[in-house]
Amino acid sequence: MIRANMASPAGHKARPLREFDLIRSLRRLCAGRDSSVRRSIGDDTAVTTGPPGRDMLLTTDLLAEGVHFDRRTAAFSDIGFRSAAANLSDIAAMGGEPKYLLIALALPDGATSREVHELYRGMLAACRPHRVLVIGGDTSASTGGWFIGVTAAGTVERGRALLRSGAHVGDAIYVTGTLGDSLAGLALANERAGRNRRSSRIASLPPQQRKFLLGRHLRPDARVAVGRWLVRTRLATSAIDLSDGLSGDIRHLCEESRVGAEIDTASLPLSPAGVAYAKATGSDPVEMALAGGEDYELLFTIPHAKHGRLERAARHKGWRLTRIGTIKPARFGIHVRSAKGLRPLPVTSYRHFQSPR
Amino acid sequence: MIRANMASPAGHKARPLREFDLIRSLRRLCAGRDSSVRRSIGDDTAVTTGPPGRDMLLTTDLLAEGVHFDRRTAAFSDIGFRSAAANLSDIAAMGGEPKYLLIALALPDGATSREVHELYRGMLAACRPHRVLVIGGDTSASTGGWFIGVTAAGTVERGRALLRSGAHVGDAIYVTGTLGDSLAGLALANERAGRNRRSSRIASLPPQQRKFLLGRHLRPDARVAVGRWLVRTRLATSAIDLSDGLSGDIRHLCEESRVGAEIDTASLPLSPAGVAYAKATGSDPVEMALAGGEDYELLFTIPHAKHGRLERAARHKGWRLTRIGTIKPARFGIHVRSAKGLRPLPVTSYRHFQSPR
Repeated sequence: MIRANMASPAGHKARPLREFDLIRSLRRLCAGRDSSVRRSIGDDTAVTTGPPGRDMLLTTDLLAEGVHFDRRTAAFSDIGFRSAAANLSDIAAMGGEPKYLLIALALPDGATSREVHELYRGMLAACRPHRVLVIGGDTSASTGGWFIGVTAAGTVERGRALLRSGAHVGDAIYVTGTLGDSLAGLALANERAGRNRRSSRIASLPPQQRKFLLGRHLRPDARVAVGRWLVRTRLATSAIDLSDGLSGDIRHLCEESRVGAEIDTASLPLSPAGVAYAKATGSDPVEMALAGGEDYELLFTIPHAKHGRLERAARHKGWRLTRIGTIKPARFGIHVRSAKGLRPLPVTSYRHFQSPR
Repeated sequence: MIRANMASPAGHKARPLREFDLIRSLRRLCAGRDSSVRRSIGDDTAVTTGPPGRDMLLTTDLLAEGVHFDRRTAAFSDIGFRSAAANLSDIAAMGGEPKYLLIALALPDGATSREVHELYRGMLAACRPHRVLVIGGDTSASTGGWFIGVTAAGTVERGRALLRSGAHVGDAIYVTGTLGDSLAGLALANERAGRNRRSSRIASLPPQQRKFLLGRHLRPDARVAVGRWLVRTRLATSAIDLSDGLSGDIRHLCEESRVGAEIDTASLPLSPAGVAYAKATGSDPVEMALAGGEDYELLFTIPHAKHGRLERAARHKGWRLTRIGTIKPARFGIHVRSAKGLRPLPVTSYRHFQSPR
């Protein structure tokens, strides 16, 4: 579960630190194991022995002001909501039931009790629908900006966590919901704060669509119900949540499963608001779906033969599940198929709170 | 386990945020519970249902450069060691067996892979004697300095965690080890880095004593064995680890147990090196023992009648356990008794990496 997100705010120099090399070497460094650890570094959460019949899922994230959030474009309650939802989404990606959150804050000079409360209220709002409890934390001073450490704990049926490493050649690749909305919502949030040069073009979006996209960015909902259902039905062979963006996260899944993938761009699920945004700004909605991060949808694989069962169930439950491609052998690499043919999936790294070009 | 450590580096203004009020109100805000949560905010760790026959202990901390550590006075490996040890100490204070660590780093521009590895090596060195595994983490960018989030998980026999809230009037108060050494070690580390104006006086300390005090500051060892033994023997009624300093932490324990305390200054355990440091610098070693933080010793209470058994066992095990006072009724408050009589315990807040006056 070590993720190196080296995205840095605009204007910062490229860092000497190579993120994937770092992850790999830290993973080797921490390679110790015992029988209680079913999964450690390299997945959405660690998996250890839990309560009777269950495994325990643990994940931690550190969100930095100016990197993962911007106080000028989001209220503290929204920042809290997203921080919590991002961690609940990691539990959802393992098919787990999120149970507890622990919060560690580092507060800059001038931080007020009102702001901390607003942040907590946002976190509690993200937790409430999933009956997750905030059971601890730590509050200390920061010489930089606001820093938010979130640890989430959950449980899953023993030995049944959805790993990144289980995808097989021939499996169908599915995603929940629609993609790229959060990136559009981010641009709208930046526009509100006067940080976007394309305001005039975005202004043509109807208020309802603006609201939808802002909500998708500021108040994402972790796909816990879908993850739980995939565990109960034993349909999925692997899963990951879309935090870095489809093009980054499919790469993580393929690397862990030692497979390749073909993504069909025509099938990528887009929201009407996302399409309208792309039209208004002259962006390519497919590129937004591929590169946009923080959608917190699930990407999962199922054996090809089971796609009928999955799609019937999805219709019955009212879930939007879309087949976007197929798992290929590792030597195939990761490619996208469009009307223009097959091309390698571009390596893009989602940069938190930067607007698309 | 919410702790508000508002200590800020020298030169920072007093902050408007009142730490204890904040803790109390966040605790109220997060008051939801379910039957799987045995203890949440307000202790060294949260306590939830664990593997069969065990409870799970969870704690998280966020350490900030310039507040909790200073790269000019400590190597990355020492910073890593202390960050891990501080969290293992929280598990020790609950009488638990620490099992896993999860690390979340925010790295400033210019951070190198070598530095991250050194930090991890220090953490792994703190974990090794306790057979604790690093099972996950997250690495991202920081616009400020280095930020280190550490989450520790452990287990304890079901229903047997040592809480802050179990002390009774008449109980004897004990501490492990010696007090104030870390504060002296901090001053020596600052001196090495040229940040201390009393270098000439400290220079009279023998090298062995300097080394001892530096080690106590830079490489504290969590008192896991004592905590585990207190749980197995069922001797202790309450416990806390000394991270903020005796005068701060006895207050947390008394508040949770709704009792008062009398501390006997003549009995406070001091190391020869600590006493020599105090002599060399003209400091009061008792004040150092009361106010100095980050000793990571355990403070615990036992029924008065059991102190004979405890002390026999301690001799047998080779542990230094010292009775430093007695639990009193809440209306007594917290007082220290010295040759000059009884006086209220001064409210001091330990400031990380600031030298004593």
